[in-house]
Amino acid sequence: MTDRVVVVGGDAAGMSAASTAKRRAGDALDVVVVERSRWTSYSACGIPYWVAGDVDGPDGLVARSPSEHRSRGIDVRTAVTATALDLAAREVVVQGEAGEQRIGYDQLVVATGAEPIVPDVPGVDAQGVHGVQTLDDGCRLLESLARDPRRAVVVGGGYIGIEMAEACVRRGLETTLVDQADEPMRTLDPDLGKQVREAMQAMGVRMVMGARVEALESGADGRVSGVVTEVGTYGAEVVVFGIGVQPRVGLARDAGLPIGASGGLRTAASMAVPGQDGLWAAGDCVESWDRIRRDHVHVPLGTHANKQGRVVGLNLSGGREEFAGVLGTAITKVCDLELGRTGLTAAQADELGRDAVSATAETTTRAGYFPGAEPMTVRLTAEPGGLLLGGQIVGRDGSALRIDTVASALWAGLSVADLVALDLAYAPPFSSVWDPVQVAARALLGKLP
Amino acid sequence: MTDRVVVVGGDAAGMSAASTAKRRAGDALDVVVVERSRWTSYSACGIPYWVAGDVDGPDGLVARSPSEHRSRGIDVRTAVTATALDLAAREVVVQGEAGEQRIGYDQLVVATGAEPIVPDVPGVDAQGVHGVQTLDDGCRLLESLARDPRRAVVVGGGYIGIEMAEACVRRGLETTLVDQADEPMRTLDPDLGKQVREAMQAMGVRMVMGARVEALESGADGRVSGVVTEVGTYGAEVVVFGIGVQPRVGLARDAGLPIGASGGLRTAASMAVPGQDGLWAAGDCVESWDRIRRDHVHVPLGTHANKQGRVVGLNLSGGREEFAGVLGTAITKVCDLELGRTGLTAAQADELGRDAVSATAETTTRAGYFPGAEPMTVRLTAEPGGLLLGGQIVGRDGSALRIDTVASALWAGLSVADLVALDLAYAPPFSSVWDPVQVAARALLGKLP
Repeated sequence: MTDRVVVVGGDAAGMSAASTAKRRAGDALDVVVVERSRWTSYSACGIPYWVAGDVDGPDGLVARSPSEHRSRGIDVRTAVTATALDLAAREVVVQGEAGEQRIGYDQLVVATGAEPIVPDVPGVDAQGVHGVQTLDDGCRLLESLARDPRRAVVVGGGYIGIEMAEACVRRGLETTLVDQADEPMRTLDPDLGKQVREAMQAMGVRMVMGARVEALESGADGRVSGVVTEVGTYGAEVVVFGIGVQPRVGLARDAGLPIGASGGLRTAASMAVPGQDGLWAAGDCVESWDRIRRDHVHVPLGTHANKQGRVVGLNLSGGREEFAGVLGTAITKVCDLELGRTGLTAAQADELGRDAVSATAETTTRAGYFPGAEPMTVRLTAEPGGLLLGGQIVGRDGSALRIDTVASALWAGLSVADLVALDLAYAPPFSSVWDPVQVAARALLGKLP
Repeated sequence: MTDRVVVVGGDAAGMSAASTAKRRAGDALDVVVVERSRWTSYSACGIPYWVAGDVDGPDGLVARSPSEHRSRGIDVRTAVTATALDLAAREVVVQGEAGEQRIGYDQLVVATGAEPIVPDVPGVDAQGVHGVQTLDDGCRLLESLARDPRRAVVVGGGYIGIEMAEACVRRGLETTLVDQADEPMRTLDPDLGKQVREAMQAMGVRMVMGARVEALESGADGRVSGVVTEVGTYGAEVVVFGIGVQPRVGLARDAGLPIGASGGLRTAASMAVPGQDGLWAAGDCVESWDRIRRDHVHVPLGTHANKQGRVVGLNLSGGREEFAGVLGTAITKVCDLELGRTGLTAAQADELGRDAVSATAETTTRAGYFPGAEPMTVRLTAEPGGLLLGGQIVGRDGSALRIDTVASALWAGLSVADLVALDLAYAPPFSSVWDPVQVAARALLGKLP
């Protein structure tokens, strides 16, 4: 007898689950995916580069199209929106061109993703105001940009905000970035965020910090014309909200599924939804275990979505796999400044009341004497006993991927002394003889009580 | 009462030991360093880049000069050669401009480094034949190159050999690299070494593989004129030997100190020489514990020399520190091809009779759709039970430093499954959503029994 799996959501988590399960189970599983948009398995992270003109979109951002998935035996139904989960009947209610339908399932995967947060201020419904979470969001933003606007305001100074501001300025727009905080990139300590602000300013972005958005103004044509903040009003024909996303859990909440304090769906390490039989969830709609905070967090990232989807797919097809949690590793670049972080920053450790010591090393991306050596800053944070808690790197070309060394050490529970001892790679085109991460580790070792 | 430490050798290991001890102990330790050359604390790894013209040498390669060390209270005596260790009298016999002297010590550090291996074939004493291990070697090679030779032969296809061949070709010499093996870089599996050979050939280096050097020819002026190999004779006005180095342990051996099977001085993990009181050794003259081979090896690298020197310095000044061993991590680049490795290759596991499984991933240095995405190859090797044994990476810009992720995992004793689960950094300018190392780890996981 063939079991049917229904997957709600056809991006990273949903399609990883579907693909993994189908590849392993073959004809023993009938896998149906319902997806609201026309796209599957796409890189939302690539949208800023599409907007900047680096990448052809939207098709260029699609890793595997609906038809490719179908050729692998997955019944992908696009432009179909799930409107309810009927857990008692074990059916998903969907709405598409064919009207309302009910699809029965033996096992259900909730992979509904996340949606951009748009603040509840007057005028946000104007034309020309955009979030960037889906390829459809990207298409709509590109339509606005095709109207040849002169000025853009990006609201939010996190990853998406700074990437989108760079994209706008590279398209030739007068670009303003507005954020409530004193410095962008609140996932870095403020003095490192300052380096990001300065790089953005050097690129030509007007950085309006410490400013809350109070309203959006629009013209008689219903299109946005400006952003009103506490500190001033900034004219704009296009506005991009990059202040984060929230788990898209309406369906799950309506069905009575457990929602955690982070706002994401709660799951066990197996990605099973507790108290339910044959019900799984993965990706941007769930909350994840943070191995360093020792708490559940909502970290909407493609890496976790893919890993969680894989775990679900293995478990759907008879495996006993667990998702091992997150560290909060992230990386990006603006202009030629790279930034990476993992675990806790000094500020975050402080906010959490965790006793912590930090040290910072100002080093170079290559041996100091080597042509092209550029500055990089590494900060490490640890418990007073030496257990590593986190790291941050801001620097030029070749800096940020070194955060993976810190992430690996953090994952394995290594101490600062272990990090000093590690046999890391060295050659003059890559670093000085002490790896930049180890220079910071030595400085931190010297500060531990 | 002030104790006196005498350090024999003023490069990475010796000066790290001296500096660390002096900084911690201050006036309580009288630190004397005797060094044969005029230089201290220099980057021998930078010599190929000096020869290529990227870096000003020799002073540009000096991290801290004798006078800088002296200003920190270390009694550095350059152009002074230690000729004997009189352990019974606790004196070092030295020879310098002032003639022979004896320097008494309370504690002794042997940091005599390594010396290039030159094969015992006719003609190797000709003018224009060079090793590259010290700045003086570099100076002599530059003198030969100042004579405007037309052709160079580099013997040896390891790190130094390929770096020196690139340096010669970039100086405009007709350059031939000769090696006994079928492919260069024997610390990589042969098919990955083939990528290195092809990159060298594309750069214009003639690669003569599988050829042993039988003799060197020279002209009436006593200068080298060609290299005779099993497969042919190659004209050259300058010859560089890059076939490796051997521990410089003549003094130590003469004094009866223990030499290991690797040819290096044996030490405890504290870097103390067993059976001796107050006698330490560090750097290219010692053998090190390989955490993966579980055996002692001779790995002459600046990273280990610095770490070992630091351990000695801490222990000289009352610490109880240990050197934690090596993994065999290494990295370099030739032209725009980067290579990194750590732990065991598939071929090495095989040679050692270790049961191992390997998998290879062909991935890209950025997201596949991102401009500038270039090929990279990642190979991982593990025990059948999943414990990681090693990794190799060959690829274009941005590839090789990822070996540090593997090195960190290897150091911490992680499994292939752990590597798949790791929270590594992702953004489209840096990789696809699954990190290249994790793509290889997933492939390997699928091959484990």
